[in-house]
Amino acid sequence: MPTLSCRIADLRGSAIRDLLSLTARPEILSLAGGLPALELVPHERISTVLAEVGADPRAWQYGETAGAGLLREVLAARETARLGRAVGVDEIVVTHGSQQALSLLAQVLVDPGDPVIVESPVYPGAAGAFAAAGATLVGVPLDGDGMQTEILEEYLAEGLRPRVLHTVSTFHNPGGAVLAAPRRRRLAELAERYDFWIVEDDPYGDLWFDSPPPDPVAAHSTRVLRLSSASKTLAPALRVGWLHGDRAVCAGVERLKQSADLCGSTLTQLVCARLLADGRWFDAHLGRVRRDYAARADALVAALRARFGDALWLEPVRGGMFAWGRFGDGTDTDRLLRTAVEHGVAFVPGSAFAVGEEDAAQLRSSLRLSFATCLPDTLVEAADRLALAHAQS
Amino acid sequence: MPTLSCRIADLRGSAIRDLLSLTARPEILSLAGGLPALELVPHERISTVLAEVGADPRAWQYGETAGAGLLREVLAARETARLGRAVGVDEIVVTHGSQQALSLLAQVLVDPGDPVIVESPVYPGAAGAFAAAGATLVGVPLDGDGMQTEILEEYLAEGLRPRVLHTVSTFHNPGGAVLAAPRRRRLAELAERYDFWIVEDDPYGDLWFDSPPPDPVAAHSTRVLRLSSASKTLAPALRVGWLHGDRAVCAGVERLKQSADLCGSTLTQLVCARLLADGRWFDAHLGRVRRDYAARADALVAALRARFGDALWLEPVRGGMFAWGRFGDGTDTDRLLRTAVEHGVAFVPGSAFAVGEEDAAQLRSSLRLSFATCLPDTLVEAADRLALAHAQS
Repeated sequence: MPTLSCRIADLRGSAIRDLLSLTARPEILSLAGGLPALELVPHERISTVLAEVGADPRAWQYGETAGAGLLREVLAARETARLGRAVGVDEIVVTHGSQQALSLLAQVLVDPGDPVIVESPVYPGAAGAFAAAGATLVGVPLDGDGMQTEILEEYLAEGLRPRVLHTVSTFHNPGGAVLAAPRRRRLAELAERYDFWIVEDDPYGDLWFDSPPPDPVAAHSTRVLRLSSASKTLAPALRVGWLHGDRAVCAGVERLKQSADLCGSTLTQLVCARLLADGRWFDAHLGRVRRDYAARADALVAALRARFGDALWLEPVRGGMFAWGRFGDGTDTDRLLRTAVEHGVAFVPGSAFAVGEEDAAQLRSSLRLSFATCLPDTLVEAADRLALAHAQS
Repeated sequence: MPTLSCRIADLRGSAIRDLLSLTARPEILSLAGGLPALELVPHERISTVLAEVGADPRAWQYGETAGAGLLREVLAARETARLGRAVGVDEIVVTHGSQQALSLLAQVLVDPGDPVIVESPVYPGAAGAFAAAGATLVGVPLDGDGMQTEILEEYLAEGLRPRVLHTVSTFHNPGGAVLAAPRRRRLAELAERYDFWIVEDDPYGDLWFDSPPPDPVAAHSTRVLRLSSASKTLAPALRVGWLHGDRAVCAGVERLKQSADLCGSTLTQLVCARLLADGRWFDAHLGRVRRDYAARADALVAALRARFGDALWLEPVRGGMFAWGRFGDGTDTDRLLRTAVEHGVAFVPGSAFAVGEEDAAQLRSSLRLSFATCLPDTLVEAADRLALAHAQS
């Protein structure tokens, strides 16, 4: 059982900083970012609603720490429909993006030294938040059906007693996987049996291509804190995320939030409430985002398959914003990145998503490619450049 | 030297929660809040600029963790003018309200058990942030010229070695005091001599009535982290605060902010940049806020003087949003609050701003009255109700 102290913060500090500086250069086609497509942000509609909401001066005042009542009601109704059980307003806290929910949850749930299960590869924002709270991260590998619960069960049988398990259950960042329905039920059972919390981080669940994902893990247990966000479906600059789950945990998060930043923006929270409550508009908008992202994913995957064939295994892309691949020819993606940048294309190497040194070696040939912000033709050009770089590396 | 473990968090938890529930009742004239006046929020102008800024889709994307470059440039130029020395963009971090700056600074600067000097009475948001970081709070009493630096010097001479000193240097919340110019210089000297950081919390400095306050403490030393915010001059719902100071501390705050919430809202930060950079408009707007707040303060103070005479000592109100008073007749303001609410008026009793038990006893006859959100006639009516309550308590 590999219990590894987290070195993610350092990895991220350097790797992502360097990558962001690359992204800024105009000659680079960047598939490295984690950003949604700007042309799919419905900014005209949001601006219209902003003007309507902002006409009432009360929208500009300080708000309640747990979030604007109207938004919490809309979110509670959505969770009720999705989980198939009544969800109360006091089971919802609105946060400054779902990263704040991760950070506050880590502080509420974790004491220094507590083991926290994450996926390998891991979403660095989660690893950073749990590491900042002093957690000892333990990685459980993904396959195409998400976190390998059989391996988790082995760890638990060997005596590991985690305090929290973090999963990006749907359209994993970076791994693309969707946690299969039986594993969702199994995770919920294990959480209840071994008395740990599950943080189900779900910013991409609405971005499915052909068919919706299975019911959330939260549908199977009340030991789940479910996180989501308006950043990937409406706009990041609204800075509206939220968590749903246990009342006592929500109360703890609310108390910490009061000291962290007092409250979020009543204005942007009320805007989100209106847009999410307008089901007809929101569904039509999501439909467009899904179609466009699916077309981009298809273009990228087809171009990569045509150029690399069996040399690059790709996780099937069923939704979200990322393609995840692994070279079968021993390519070191840290090294490939340097050549790739010379050829005008960027991605994130697998090592940036490692839970520790050993894990970094496992992920040495992997890479994450974001298709969200590029049009299909650009993605084909990016695949061409990557193939050239690969041939020369 | 009274070294007191902080019980502020508990006090706040109950006192402020109860007060907020009172404030919500329409028959209560609440002078308890810490909110700015909604009718002075320039929401039409902000909405116009929001629409202009929001027309560029890039305003809706994730932004840099340290804040939008344009806003940091505007803030650096303002600080340069105010401090009389060149301030670089890398000495500015934009935060989610200045409460986030307090919280992140506390985490960067304080290790558990470190002594942190605060004022007595203390701003509870600061006490909460430092307590959450594990600080041991030590209160230094205020007088009309702000923190009594002579008492601080005694503590230092006795061997106290604080890590940080927090001061609301101008128009103190709750105490109303303005730190006198010689004390500002003295504080800066002491910080350099005894090697501690000063957190100069300055959300109200622009809200002066008859004459501007002395130069900031930050004008006298680079050991000062200066905090301010758009919440009291533009609108709380923008959620834009900032800190200025030492580059290495700013870098530490930026790193923590990445894990805390990734970034703020590019949209509202760019709106602030435009409004603050439009000096002619912003000065005229501030002029109106100053005149209206001054008229409210005058009305409240005159009404209280007429009704209470010598029984209620009042700190002269020179700016900001709060009047601070102390009964000379032994009135217990915790008890008075209960009677006051029955008479339809609310305030915050001094005990809510105590650093510890002993301090709470000192502040037993004190109270904070906010004049910001009521028109002069309403403040006169509030004083009438308070006088009735006082007569019956």
